[in-house]
This record gives sequence, C-alpha cells and structure tokens, in this order.
Amino acid sequence: MSKNIFFRNIGPLKINKIFKSFPNDKNKIFDIKSLEKAQKNDLTFFDSLKYLKYLKDTKGAYCLTTDKLKKYLPTQCKAIIVKNVLFELSRVLKLLYPSADIDYPDSSLKKPTKSKFKHVKFGNNVLIGKNVKIGKNTIIGSNTIIEKNVEIGMNCIIGSQVVIKNALVKNFVVVQDGTKIGQKGFGFIPTQKINIKFPHIGKVIIDDHVEIASSCTIDRGSVDDTYIGKNTYIDNQVHIAHNVKIGKNCMIAGQVGFAGSAVIGDNVSIGGQAGVSGHLKIGNNVKIGGGSGVVKDISDNQVVMGYPAVSIKEFLKKNNE
Amino acid sequence: MSKNIFFRNIGPLKINKIFKSFPNDKNKIFDIKSLEKAQKNDLTFFDSLKYLKYLKDTKGAYCLTTDKLKKYLPTQCKAIIVKNVLFELSRVLKLLYPSADIDYPDSSLKKPTKSKFKHVKFGNNVLIGKNVKIGKNTIIGSNTIIEKNVEIGMNCIIGSQVVIKNALVKNFVVVQDGTKIGQKGFGFIPTQKINIKFPHIGKVIIDDHVEIASSCTIDRGSVDDTYIGKNTYIDNQVHIAHNVKIGKNCMIAGQVGFAGSAVIGDNVSIGGQAGVSGHLKIGNNVKIGGGSGVVKDISDNQVVMGYPAVSIKEFLKKNNE
Amino acid sequence: MSKNIFFRNIGPLKINKIFKSFPNDKNKIFDIKSLEKAQKNDLTFFDSLKYLKYLKDTKGAYCLTTDKLKKYLPTQCKAIIVKNVLFELSRVLKLLYPSADIDYPDSSLKKPTKSKFKHVKFGNNVLIGKNVKIGKNTIIGSNTIIEKNVEIGMNCIIGSQVVIKNALVKNFVVVQDGTKIGQKGFGFIPTQKINIKFPHIGKVIIDDHVEIASSCTIDRGSVDDTYIGKNTYIDNQVHIAHNVKIGKNCMIAGQVGFAGSAVIGDNVSIGGQAGVSGHLKIGNNVKIGGGSGVVKDISDNQVVMGYPAVSIKEFLKKNNE
Repeated sequence: MSKNIFFRNIGPLKINKIFKSFPNDKNKIFDIKSLEKAQKNDLTFFDSLKYLKYLKDTKGAYCLTTDKLKKYLPTQCKAIIVKNVLFELSRVLKLLYPSADIDYPDSSLKKPTKSKFKHVKFGNNVLIGKNVKIGKNTIIGSNTIIEKNVEIGMNCIIGSQVVIKNALVKNFVVVQDGTKIGQKGFGFIPTQKINIKFPHIGKVIIDDHVEIASSCTIDRGSVDDTYIGKNTYIDNQVHIAHNVKIGKNCMIAGQVGFAGSAVIGDNVSIGGQAGVSGHLKIGNNVKIGGGSGVVKDISDNQVVMGYPAVSIKEFLKKNNE
Repeated sequence: MSKNIFFRNIGPLKINKIFKSFPNDKNKIFDIKSLEKAQKNDLTFFDSLKYLKYLKDTKGAYCLTTDKLKKYLPTQCKAIIVKNVLFELSRVLKLLYPSADIDYPDSSLKKPTKSKFKHVKFGNNVLIGKNVKIGKNTIIGSNTIIEKNVEIGMNCIIGSQVVIKNALVKNFVVVQDGTKIGQKGFGFIPTQKINIKFPHIGKVIIDDHVEIASSCTIDRGSVDDTYIGKNTYIDNQVHIAHNVKIGKNCMIAGQVGFAGSAVIGDNVSIGGQAGVSGHLKIGNNVKIGGGSGVVKDISDNQVVMGYPAVSIKEFLKKNNE
Repeated sequence: MSKNIFFRNIGPLKINKIFKSFPNDKNKIFDIKSLEKAQKNDLTFFDSLKYLKYLKDTKGAYCLTTDKLKKYLPTQCKAIIVKNVLFELSRVLKLLYPSADIDYPDSSLKKPTKSKFKHVKFGNNVLIGKNVKIGKNTIIGSNTIIEKNVEIGMNCIIGSQVVIKNALVKNFVVVQDGTKIGQKGFGFIPTQKINIKFPHIGKVIIDDHVEIASSCTIDRGSVDDTYIGKNTYIDNQVHIAHNVKIGKNCMIAGQVGFAGSAVIGDNVSIGGQAGVSGHLKIGNNVKIGGGSGVVKDISDNQVVMGYPAVSIKEFLKKNNE
C-alpha cells in the first residue's frame, strides 16, 4: 500500500537472509506492517489474542508469532515461529529500516526559500528539511524545526520552538510554542547490558482543526501510526505515546498522559493530570475526571473518576464513607 | 482604565451592531472586562452566582447574563439576556479583538539592538518584538524569544529557549530554560464541527523576586490576567492555566498543575504532581501534599493530602485502616 | 579530590572570615562537600541522623551541625554549631561559589568550529560554550545549546532544542528533542521577603547507553551530583530533581517525577505519572505501578502501587473491597 515517506526501506529482503530457520525460502518481504495493514508481500506479527479479530483478514504473507499462537493463523499466512515476537520484530525492522531506531537529527535542514513556499509565512530562524510540504496561509513561528518529508496543510498556525518530524498535519491545525511531535516512542527490548532500541517506522497524523497547546510531546507510532482526530483540543504538557489513537471532538486537559497504543473514542473529555494505561480502549462520549488513573477499558458514555478509575457513582460512594 | 497593550482593540463598537436584540441602541462599548474591572463604557458578564459579590459594585454599562440571573444586576447595568453567556462573550471578544483567539507568531521579532537595550545582556540568537521594554542588568539567554510589548524589569535572569509573550515581568525575576509564558489558555466553546476558540485578551503578570524553573507553561488570562505573587518559587514542569492567581511566598513543587481561574493564597506550599481544580480558592498558609488532587476550596492554614484531598488527619486515618 | 569544573571556587577562605564565632581560627577551607566526599581541607555538614552512617568516616576538617548533633562527630572533625544548617551552608556556599545560585546564561556560547570538533556532526544554529568536549561520532541536533565545560562522550545522539549545562554525559547516550539537563534545582531558604537561593555546585552525570526522551528536566545536584546509571531509559516529560541517583537498567515511563535526593536502585521499572518523594531509597528490581505516589523507602524486589504506594497485593485487596 502506502510507501513509508519518513524512513528509508532498504528492502525487499529475502526470507532466508532474515530467518535462519527458513534456509530455502527465497521469497522476499517488502515491508513490515500490522495485521490489518499488511499486504501480500509483507511481514506481519501476532503476539496476543487481543488482536485475534484482525488476524483472519490479514493479507500478510508471513507472520511472526509463537508456537502457541500459530494455530490461529489463516492458511495463506506463513507462520515464523519465534520465542519473543517483539525481539524478532525489532531485529527485522532494524534490517529493513536501519535508521528508525534513533532520532538522528535531520541533516537536510535549511532556511526556507521564498520561492518554494510562496504563500507561507515564516518567523525568524525557521529550519525546514527536504521535501517538506506546507499549505497556503500557514504560519510557522520562530526557531521552529520542520524535519524532512513532513507535510503541513493549509491555514495552520505553528508556534515557536516547535519540532515536527515524521508527521502529517492536515488543515487549520494550531500547535502552540514548544510542542514536540513525531519523536521516537518509548519502545525497546530490555537487556542487562545494552537495551535493543525498537525501530519506530510509524508517523503522527494530526487531523483538521486540531489544537495542541504548549510543551506537549506526541510520539510517532512504532509499526502503526499515532493519530489525533478532527477538532480535538489538547492542553499544555500532555504526553501522547506511540500508536495512541484519539478520536474527534475530544478535550484533553493539561498534563494528561496516554501510554502506548491506547485508543480513545470520539467526544471524550479528560480532566487534568489523568492517565490512561497502554493498550486500553476508551469508548465514545466518555468523561474521565481530573487526576484519574484509567487501567481498564471503558465503554461508551461512561463517566469515571479515581485511581484506579471507577464510575463516578462508585467514586463518590467510596469517598463519602 | 488600562489600555490593552497586547491585543489590538478595534472598538468602540455600537451595541446595535453587536446585538440584534438591541436594534436602536447606538451606545458604544469600548472594552470587555470582568465585573470588578469593568468601567462605565465597558461590557461585562455574569454567568454564575459565584461572582455575585462583585456584581453590586460593577461599573460596567452592559452585562451579558441569563434570564435567570438578570434580577441580580444593579440598576445602572443594562442586562443583555443570552442563552449561553460564554458563547456570546466569545463572539463579542472576537469582534472587538480579532487577533486574540490564536497565538499568531510575532512577525515583528528581530535581533535586539545595543543602542535600544544599553544595560541588558543578551545571549546568542535572541529575538525581541517591537516595543519590548527590558530593565537594566537583566540577562536574556540564548535562543529566547520575547514577543512584542512585553515588559521585563530590572535584574532579571531569563534562561535559554524561553518564550515570553503577553506578559509583564517585574524585577529580580528568574525564569529557567525552556519555560513558556503568556500563551493562549485552554478555552473554547465546543461544537461537533469546529470548536469556537475563545479569545484570550488577558496577560500574565509575574511579580518581583519570583523564580520559575525549567519547562513550565503559564497561560495568559482570558478576560482577566494570570498572576504570580512576589517571592513565589515554582519548580520544573508546572502548568498554570489561564486566570490563575497565586499569592506571595508560595512554594510550588515539580509537575504541579493548576486548572483555570484557581486562586491560591499567600505562603502556600504544594508538593510535587499535585493538581488544583478550576475556579477553586485555596486560603493562606495552606499545605497541600505531593500527588494530591484538590477538588474543593480550602480555608486558611489547612494541611491537606490525598485524592480527593482531605485533611492530613483524615488522610492518615483512611490509609491506616 | 576532584576540582569543580563548572563553578568557580574563589577559595580557599579562612575560617575566621566565614564564621564570627571562630575569631582566631586562621585555617582555610578549600571546598564544601558531603560527608562521604569531604577531604581534609573541606567543610562538610551534618543535619540529620539519616546520614549518620557516613559521619564516622568523613575526612572533612569542619562540619556545620547543630548543638544536638555535634556529639556524633568524629574527633578530627571540628563542629561549627549553628541553628539552621542549611541556611549556614547556603551562606558559605555563596561565599565560596558566588555564581552557582542562579543559572546565569553562558556568555561564552559560539558556533562550533570544524577544527575543534573534527569528528562531531552539528545541526544548524548549535551553540557551544568554552572548553566543551565532545567525543567522536556524536551528533548534536539543531538549535541545541551545550554550555561551558560540559563533556559529552562518543557516539551520542543529542536532539534538537536541547540545553545541557553542568553535566558529564558518557558514551552512546541518546537525548531527544527539548530536554533540559543541568539546571539549578529547586532549593532555597524560604523567607517572608526574599528567599535565599541555595547555590547548586553539583552536576549531572549520565552514564553509558542511557536514553532520555523528549522534554525531560534533569536538575544538577546541590552539593552532591545527580546521576543516571548505565542503560537506564527515561520517557518523555520526566522530572528528575537535584541529587537524585538512578541505578542501571531502569525503565522510567512518561511524566514520572522524582523529588530531590531520591535514590533508586538497579533494574527498577516505574509506570507513567508515578511520583517518588524526596530522600527516599528504592531498592533493586522494584516495580512501581503507573500513577503511584511513593512516600516511603521500598526494599529490593517489591512490586508496589497506589497512592500512597503499597504492595500490589494490598492495593488489589483495597480496591476490590
């Protein structure tokens, strides 16, 4: 499907070059994608029954998985049995994308030229990488860095001292001073000597009319993308980890934190300093009170509060005993 | 009273041009202010009994309010009855102050000239907007941006990679690296398509001898101002929302967050990662334990802790059961 | 022992010039150090029985202490009895190190010269102070500031818009965009008029293979150093206060905060938004759940959660009642 515009893919790579247990398999893999995005020449991975629903429709040709889980694979998808799926995934990602495991500073940064960005206003000392696209009427504040291949739409206002890398920013988006978007997330394989850095080949997508306040951090996805939906507003010092998906029309107050791969519905409002654990699903129209710690899925229309977060009714009961 | 030096007021505007329900009223409003600050040609607003104490002395000529609340208005203050006070306030603010709803980067920024700032020391790549005033013996660190009309007093030390806009900083103030001051707060009228951004025409006032550590965010006021009192010290990564007022001699530890319009007394100490909800009043000499979530007013001299915060005695009792 | 390379020591100073109560003592002190680091010409300090274990082996010649505590001092160590040890320590530190109480921006910053940094890659607008040392194959991102005397090892990747001051960074270290390292910590003697800023003469030491994500703040030590052990990984927006010591192979998730002088063992993992109070000792192999507030020491191999943090067993029991 879509080519990775942010990280150089040095594939295709032959299966027998990557996996010793397949000495005769000279098929090639072209990319590494999640179950739902993998195409017929791609490697995918399956390490938790949580993702079973995506497995049966995957188009991936090969799938990293464990001996226990291999039985769930559809027939066209060849199992590559490993002990530690994430470790092997990390290893293969590094082979295919050698420069995605560390945020190497962009060496193509330059002052923008007027001729290339006719209808864009730049502050002072702005630095722009190669192949950056910026729509008309967008304004970029001083000392801001937009790294290579980033795309920013029309009528956006990007503040000062911002860094945007590995990101697609749509139209009418506001980003306030000091926010950092598209950095590598907190993913690695821990070891006792030198951790193995997990390559992050995903990006950040910020949809129309989003507003992101000052000094936020929004990490790019690892294999998948990080996504902020239309018309969602995010206050200061919010931390959004890799692969998080936030729906439209959400309101996220100051200092909220989302751990990796959390999925947030539409019209969700979250009070200041609340935290959402990784890999959770928060439904639509949910309200989460300030300071709450959400540690399990929340279905649509719930109002929750507390640490761990419970329904508001239960929270009030507990605290009025 | 005082002219808004940060946002251009394109008024005065005639009442009948702003409000369709007053087709014959050709009086003009010159400004929009809170109840206690409004002068005789100003529009003010009253949307909660919480502010009743300010209402009887208001000098405002017109007041946005609801059908329910209009009966409390003093006689010289003409009621403008609306369904949603904040929505109408936002609309009129945008008419009077067209550029306060987004942080448009300051296009007047330039390298400071020695002749204009004789007794100020600048690091490298400092950017200063037009009409900025800086007192003698003040030092401004490298890559820092001071936007137009900001005033900084004498003997201040401003770190590197700081942004200050829409702010009055008094004397002997220290601001450490990376802190952002004066950005638009998190205020808007939510809608299902495109939220309406609430214009923020207030500023930040930082009084003498304040110290603000690294990577804090201090938003400017919406209609009123954000204020930090004398000799108050603020640690790293503290978030101070719009309209917050903090008294003198306070100690605010790292990662504390204040939601909008919280009012904090003098000599208050707040432990790390505590949060204070919006529109609360914290008395003088209050101590708030680290990690607490304060969700209601606290009277003078209390020591509180927990989430929600209760008296230290009650907290210890609960946790020793 | 080691000379302070970051702050100018204007000593030695004669005892009778510093302490009025010693009018005839013309001995000199050369430095001020903690009990375990003080050498035979140094002043040290002892204000809590918590540090008794270090007292008997101290080599310091003079020791600031209280009337109550003086009896514990070894014979070669002369007691200087004061009412408030920290106040007197602060006063003497300021005499010996006049410029360590405020982060005066580095006026020696310049663009790096190719001849001096042959095997280092720099982004745009990088600023480097005098006597900075950077190892080969290290890359420094755009708009980043490395202040005077900082040492950075080989094969490090430092992101954009970073500030590093008063720090020794070893090899293979990664620091992502926007992080601030080496600023003065949150230490002062509160008074009702003008707080007395506590000079911070310590530094930050970051050991091999550490990874620090985006927009963190790591303060330098006050008298001692702040230390991050080998192969420890730190996520976005983490706050590490002065004198904190973190062991090796730790994993610190986003928005965690450490108050001053906390000591963390090896192989510790801490979930997002957790907080660790000051002066605590966390053992090896401890796991602290996200959002926890740790307010007392934790011994090796414990798994804790909650606010205040208790064993996971107790936490689950409490929340399933």
